[in-house]
Amino acid sequence: MTLSREQAHYLFGVMRLTEGAEVALFNGRDGEWRARVDEAGKRGGMLACVEQTAPLVLPPDLWLLFAPIKKARTDFIVEKAVEMGARRILPVSTEFTNSERIRQDRLQAHAVEAAEQCGATYVPEVAELARLDRLLADWPDGRHLMFCDEGRAGQPVPLPDIPGPWAILIGPEGGFSEAERSRLHALPFAHPVALGPRILRADTAAVAALTLWQSMLGDWR
Amino acid sequence: MTLSREQAHYLFGVMRLTEGAEVALFNGRDGEWRARVDEAGKRGGMLACVEQTAPLVLPPDLWLLFAPIKKARTDFIVEKAVEMGARRILPVSTEFTNSERIRQDRLQAHAVEAAEQCGATYVPEVAELARLDRLLADWPDGRHLMFCDEGRAGQPVPLPDIPGPWAILIGPEGGFSEAERSRLHALPFAHPVALGPRILRADTAAVAALTLWQSMLGDWR
Repeated sequence: MTLSREQAHYLFGVMRLTEGAEVALFNGRDGEWRARVDEAGKRGGMLACVEQTAPLVLPPDLWLLFAPIKKARTDFIVEKAVEMGARRILPVSTEFTNSERIRQDRLQAHAVEAAEQCGATYVPEVAELARLDRLLADWPDGRHLMFCDEGRAGQPVPLPDIPGPWAILIGPEGGFSEAERSRLHALPFAHPVALGPRILRADTAAVAALTLWQSMLGDWR
Repeated sequence: MTLSREQAHYLFGVMRLTEGAEVALFNGRDGEWRARVDEAGKRGGMLACVEQTAPLVLPPDLWLLFAPIKKARTDFIVEKAVEMGARRILPVSTEFTNSERIRQDRLQAHAVEAAEQCGATYVPEVAELARLDRLLADWPDGRHLMFCDEGRAGQPVPLPDIPGPWAILIGPEGGFSEAERSRLHALPFAHPVALGPRILRADTAAVAALTLWQSMLGDWR
């Protein structure tokens, strides 16, 4: 593969690799590879894949939808979604969403870093910010949606044991609006789930919901 | 109650309350109270409790033991332990613990803030840093210990359904040493639990382990 200027700078400027050196490569789609530096230059270079060292391991078909919050906590949700094994990450805007903008490219880069950290060979796609009502209007057939309903805090509302593709929806810090809650409750593919008697921050709720799903329906079983 | 200089500064200097104003009070032990300012001064003052507005709600008898990591993530674990409903928080040092010091007073203040945020009336005590081997040698009778065993990643190792007091142990980022793992496996009160096939950061593992426990044995049921 040919290297970009940034990649060449990192490998040959920062890490000071020379021709013949070996590195571990992953692109989020083809597993992990051992690769050799064939050409090292300040502005570019060439790597040759030698052998695959780990296969691509896909997480279960689970999407995480969340309403973006303050920057640090949004980054955190993306990091946690990767570690916890979400297949796709979809920032959504709701009536009470605090932040109307995201930097999709920055969040995607954050997902790559998180995958490196946790030894995952798969990197979930971070989608552009979309409106929740539009996503729900155009919802894919057969995908179930678990939404964390603050109105039911303290009641035991367990996750239904239905296999197949799922999505988790984490509301904004201000909660869903009444109109959103009524709509969610009326959707045949949506299932309310309560996350205990205390109010959770959105980032905590994301990890907790992913844990419940993975341990019951996902690859933690 | 008599106010400290800091409390008086906040109420009368920053918030500009005057005599007769009302505030919500909680001390982590007696629930939440409506209180009235009886005396307002720059360096002190007096509040009178008018009536209890919320009872003390104790979380289940669950301790969280964790090996401190970088400052921001240690703060984060304390915050999450409060939100998720741990009764006591015990920083422990292990063979591979990265940080040998904590600021107990700062972490305790962080626990108070987290309780305010999540509407909890109980504030768990944050203990001083202690050595894991000493804690295990002096372990209280009848308390079970769930430890997250990275060596079993990917195997389904569910939490055993045993009621009573429990503790969760989250290892350091470098994992437990072989000696620690053997010792933990040999302890009759310790139960290994696996948290899925991906490597989790310590802060993620803390929230995930607390979720599993609360949903199966705690106050999320």
